[in-house]
Amino acid sequence: MADNAYDVVILGGGSGGYAAAFRAAELGLSVVLVEKDKVGGTCLHRGCIPTKALLHAAEVADAAREGEQFGVRTTLEGIDMPGVNKYKDGVVSRLYKGLQGLVKQRKITYVEGYGRLVDSRTVEVDGQRYTGRNVVLATGSVPKSLPGLTIDGNRIVSSDHALQMEQVPRSAIILGGGVIGVEFASVWKSFGADVTIVEALPHLLPLEDESSSKLIERAYRRRGIKYELGNRFSKADYTEEGVRVTLENGTTLEADLLLVAVGRGPVSAGLGYEEAGVRVDRGYVVVDDHCRTSVEGVYAVGDLIPTLQLAHVGFGEGILVAEQIAGLPVAPIDYDGVPRVTYSEPEVASVGITEARAREKFGTENVKVLTYDLAGNGKSSILKTQGAVKLVQQADGPVVGVHMVGARVGELIAEAQLITNWEALPVEVAQLIHPHPTQSEALGEAHLALAGKPLHVHG
Amino acid sequence: MADNAYDVVILGGGSGGYAAAFRAAELGLSVVLVEKDKVGGTCLHRGCIPTKALLHAAEVADAAREGEQFGVRTTLEGIDMPGVNKYKDGVVSRLYKGLQGLVKQRKITYVEGYGRLVDSRTVEVDGQRYTGRNVVLATGSVPKSLPGLTIDGNRIVSSDHALQMEQVPRSAIILGGGVIGVEFASVWKSFGADVTIVEALPHLLPLEDESSSKLIERAYRRRGIKYELGNRFSKADYTEEGVRVTLENGTTLEADLLLVAVGRGPVSAGLGYEEAGVRVDRGYVVVDDHCRTSVEGVYAVGDLIPTLQLAHVGFGEGILVAEQIAGLPVAPIDYDGVPRVTYSEPEVASVGITEARAREKFGTENVKVLTYDLAGNGKSSILKTQGAVKLVQQADGPVVGVHMVGARVGELIAEAQLITNWEALPVEVAQLIHPHPTQSEALGEAHLALAGKPLHVHG
Repeated sequence: MADNAYDVVILGGGSGGYAAAFRAAELGLSVVLVEKDKVGGTCLHRGCIPTKALLHAAEVADAAREGEQFGVRTTLEGIDMPGVNKYKDGVVSRLYKGLQGLVKQRKITYVEGYGRLVDSRTVEVDGQRYTGRNVVLATGSVPKSLPGLTIDGNRIVSSDHALQMEQVPRSAIILGGGVIGVEFASVWKSFGADVTIVEALPHLLPLEDESSSKLIERAYRRRGIKYELGNRFSKADYTEEGVRVTLENGTTLEADLLLVAVGRGPVSAGLGYEEAGVRVDRGYVVVDDHCRTSVEGVYAVGDLIPTLQLAHVGFGEGILVAEQIAGLPVAPIDYDGVPRVTYSEPEVASVGITEARAREKFGTENVKVLTYDLAGNGKSSILKTQGAVKLVQQADGPVVGVHMVGARVGELIAEAQLITNWEALPVEVAQLIHPHPTQSEALGEAHLALAGKPLHVHG
Repeated sequence: MADNAYDVVILGGGSGGYAAAFRAAELGLSVVLVEKDKVGGTCLHRGCIPTKALLHAAEVADAAREGEQFGVRTTLEGIDMPGVNKYKDGVVSRLYKGLQGLVKQRKITYVEGYGRLVDSRTVEVDGQRYTGRNVVLATGSVPKSLPGLTIDGNRIVSSDHALQMEQVPRSAIILGGGVIGVEFASVWKSFGADVTIVEALPHLLPLEDESSSKLIERAYRRRGIKYELGNRFSKADYTEEGVRVTLENGTTLEADLLLVAVGRGPVSAGLGYEEAGVRVDRGYVVVDDHCRTSVEGVYAVGDLIPTLQLAHVGFGEGILVAEQIAGLPVAPIDYDGVPRVTYSEPEVASVGITEARAREKFGTENVKVLTYDLAGNGKSSILKTQGAVKLVQQADGPVVGVHMVGARVGELIAEAQLITNWEALPVEVAQLIHPHPTQSEALGEAHLALAGKPLHVHG
């Protein structure tokens, strides 16, 4: 190996890649970070951040539309999409600037360009080679489509295009009832569009506890967001003004726009991974529980590996890899312990395992469940939101799953993350009376009830 | 003692009283709950709940006023105070109905009427006597005034009146920069009034960590809420249309309305407490750390005793007393561990001790402090809110204080409550990567930085 090798060469500057770079640099390692587009990757530029900006604009629109309910005389005159985009792009560019500052400050060698693995220690960018004692693959993911369905970026779009709309569609069909589909449905409905979600599985957000899926379905029904569940897509045709979607059961739907939100696939093709001996399975780089690939010294993190496609999972994996390379003791990530949030209106959030999974794991008689309806929670009444907090407990042991639906509950799952990851007993949480009147009280009340000492709970 | 004595007679049906009643009934005790007005007390009818409804209406008004920043074309035409009151009263009456249902369901003997202690075991209501093996005093508090300042309910009002306004004042002076004063200032400013707060101490929210006080002062300056700090009230005179307030330094202020928010005093006079042998000090019933008064078998909880005047403290004390009476093992409440929230825009929330208090307690060299600016937090950027999360750590030990300022941070303090009460080390929190992009990440990032592994933090 060349003497001028870096400690770590990282291919891809998204959440997983830059987190690995930051932590490695903090630990005194020399780091090259290669990114073909902009540091921050999908999350900052085409994912988490811009979608949440749209969702906040949607919340503002809803507030103005519904002001009268609160005694506030407001009018919603319309959505100024260029204005929304300016706001969204402003948020992104401010965070992007911050991130660029962090890259500089940590003395990371940042290389802008399209990198490829040319051997198991070397990344080539525009003819220049960077050799590392360790290599981290972090090339992320892109939106997928279905066989025979071509994304044209105009009437048939991916989430990348949906973030750059110059006007609100009058109507939209969303293919896929996962997180991305459910979030865009929320935005566009708030912006005044007529929205239908098509999901092949029997529920929206099929990875969530079934109770949460049912609650978001009920909420969407009330909001007038339509959905076709358990119904597979067959084909899409252009109409004079838009798109016609035919489902396998023969149902047809028409709209201005079709958003394909059937998931994201790993970006690994043509990057030299397999040639360098790195095992790849259906596009995903295969890793062990320490993010080690089949080649020693080569790691992979983020959406490129078949773990949860979440920015904070990328952060965690990036940190894990950097600490490992620096020789610190590390423990595998407990993926069940990672919180998941869908930032729709209402929000859906969870951590730990579902009731169904708990019954499989511990035996159905060894699982206790408690559901606290937000109707009993003062702050939720003030927000006029509906939903619930559901706790899943292992027999008389710790809380192993928390599932929430309601406006703003995404912020409450952090507390639940401590509870499930620290294996707290209900009584340990119950002894801490939560601040009144907050939505967080719902979590407190649920634990009081599960501990056998309900406060504001009808028996 | 009469054979027909109840296990517990509770005088006062507010947060502390009804929590004691519910828990005692759950534990199989026979309970009488005496309330002169409505079960729920100040918190539900004249405090926490109605003020938070006003604050949410204020948030809706702000959203409509500032929609353009987010690309949403909104107009705020005005505040319809009868509409606001209808919304607020609707929330209260729904929760009130729920609470009445709980009283019935738990088979509590509910007595409506003005009760007095006639001996250390007996409460008399309209000539009827209720004897208990134990008595719980929970008669709460009412707004105080200053010597020589008469609350007329018209131009010089207390928070009770401020909750019943038929129109928004054009201008208001608020005497007192504590929680109540700061919250009403926030509401009225959002509703379009010109607001000035007068506070005798050098800071708004003087019980908070000084850094939080400074941040709320900066935020209020930006919002155009004026304040006179370190300046004592001298007198108030009526003018033709309103009120003129003179401060001790000679400054005069004029406004339509003067809100007196100088604190709340205990309701104990004329209730027979001292005659029954219960020690009272400046109106507060004196208790030990188990809420036991000077008379065996007589307890006191809530705003009537000199602990934090918070509904959730009342809940905690009520539960403590009920469990004690039922013979369960109980531990004193750690009042430092109780979260405090001011629901202003921005919110201020804290749990544990301040930096100053930590330096006194542990020695100044044994305290570490870390402040994470919300400018680095994606969700806070999306909300366009400013503020910070400050952690106070004992040497290399646990986090002993968390202090936050920013929109919606009141919901984040519940996680911090677990951290400080469970004496978590920064590294224990740091290993749990928080959901992205949430405001709760700010707490995660602060712990990452304090643990020596900063992620999105400029060094």
